[in-house]
Amino acid sequence: MLLQNWTTLSSSVVFQAEHWFRVVRDKVKLPSNRIIDDYFRIEAPEFVLIYARSTDGRVLVERQYKHGLGKITTTFPAGFIDTGEPPILAAKRELLEETGFRAKTWKHMGTFVLDGTRYSGKAHCYIAEDLEQVSTPINDDMEELEIFFLTVRELHDSIASGDLCLLPGLAIMAMATNPMMNDLYTVIKNEP
Amino acid sequence: MLLQNWTTLSSSVVFQAEHWFRVVRDKVKLPSNRIIDDYFRIEAPEFVLIYARSTDGRVLVERQYKHGLGKITTTFPAGFIDTGEPPILAAKRELLEETGFRAKTWKHMGTFVLDGTRYSGKAHCYIAEDLEQVSTPINDDMEELEIFFLTVRELHDSIASGDLCLLPGLAIMAMATNPMMNDLYTVIKNEP
Repeated sequence: MLLQNWTTLSSSVVFQAEHWFRVVRDKVKLPSNRIIDDYFRIEAPEFVLIYARSTDGRVLVERQYKHGLGKITTTFPAGFIDTGEPPILAAKRELLEETGFRAKTWKHMGTFVLDGTRYSGKAHCYIAEDLEQVSTPINDDMEELEIFFLTVRELHDSIASGDLCLLPGLAIMAMATNPMMNDLYTVIKNEP
Repeated sequence: MLLQNWTTLSSSVVFQAEHWFRVVRDKVKLPSNRIIDDYFRIEAPEFVLIYARSTDGRVLVERQYKHGLGKITTTFPAGFIDTGEPPILAAKRELLEETGFRAKTWKHMGTFVLDGTRYSGKAHCYIAEDLEQVSTPINDDMEELEIFFLTVRELHDSIASGDLCLLPGLAIMAMATNPMMNDLYTVIKNEP
């Protein structure tokens, strides 16, 4: 049987967590014609994720408490895109705000969806190069963080120890350091 | 200032989407001593994610409609872990159910969290090798799918065209095909 899309018959917001995310109940019709009254999905803002590396190959990372995870972890610069903001501008803004660094060279690695089943959070992934520090980080008390550079070897150690444990960061790092995928972003046209 | 964990003062479930996910409201105390009454988080079941490759280097993929994404996409075998089920057994069960394949060799690539800010879904990632087809896939009408093998080159084309657009799949593929990360999983001890 040929694969077919589902049809959304109606949709309503059943829970709204301010501007962070909301839960939507869809009434859907499957290709089998069966109706499901309550397929719950989560809608969340799009975000940017930045693999910023210096000319000597070290990578800009943050150490930060993440409450979804419940512990302090090593992550990469990232942040939500404001309404109407072009993703590349959000990436430049977040890098500057969180780290005080500006990058002269930006490459879009692609845009990917966190979870296709229930959760629609979309990540715009970038490699940032030719870094220069132009200011000090701006952070409030919900986002206290330390900024530093790690070598790829040190990042591998962080993965092995469980310190670097967030999948989006692992994804951009594995992609950015994968020679087979090196030039993939030059031809990438994806926009899910 | 030294990084510190937040303290959760109380926690309550404010929305439950059957066994798929739930929304939790935490009352938290920040290191600054500020209290936040309503930090909303999403709790979701742990899942397994499988990069299954044949001896000639082709990779087992699925083509499937994903309602969180709203379209048909190329993905890798994956599925939720049942309550109390060891992740490796869930991986073997899901591979067999979804594809009809069994693998003789399994390697744990690590366990990673989808989103550290709001969403706790945890992915146990595996490479499966020495594949043999032992049965036909078992799928219901919510999970109609096609199974086939793609070369890594074809997977890159799928990424470039936007057809393969889910971040967890990108992450395991980028990691499994990254020579610098090849042996990382042999030393990995992470369990977030």
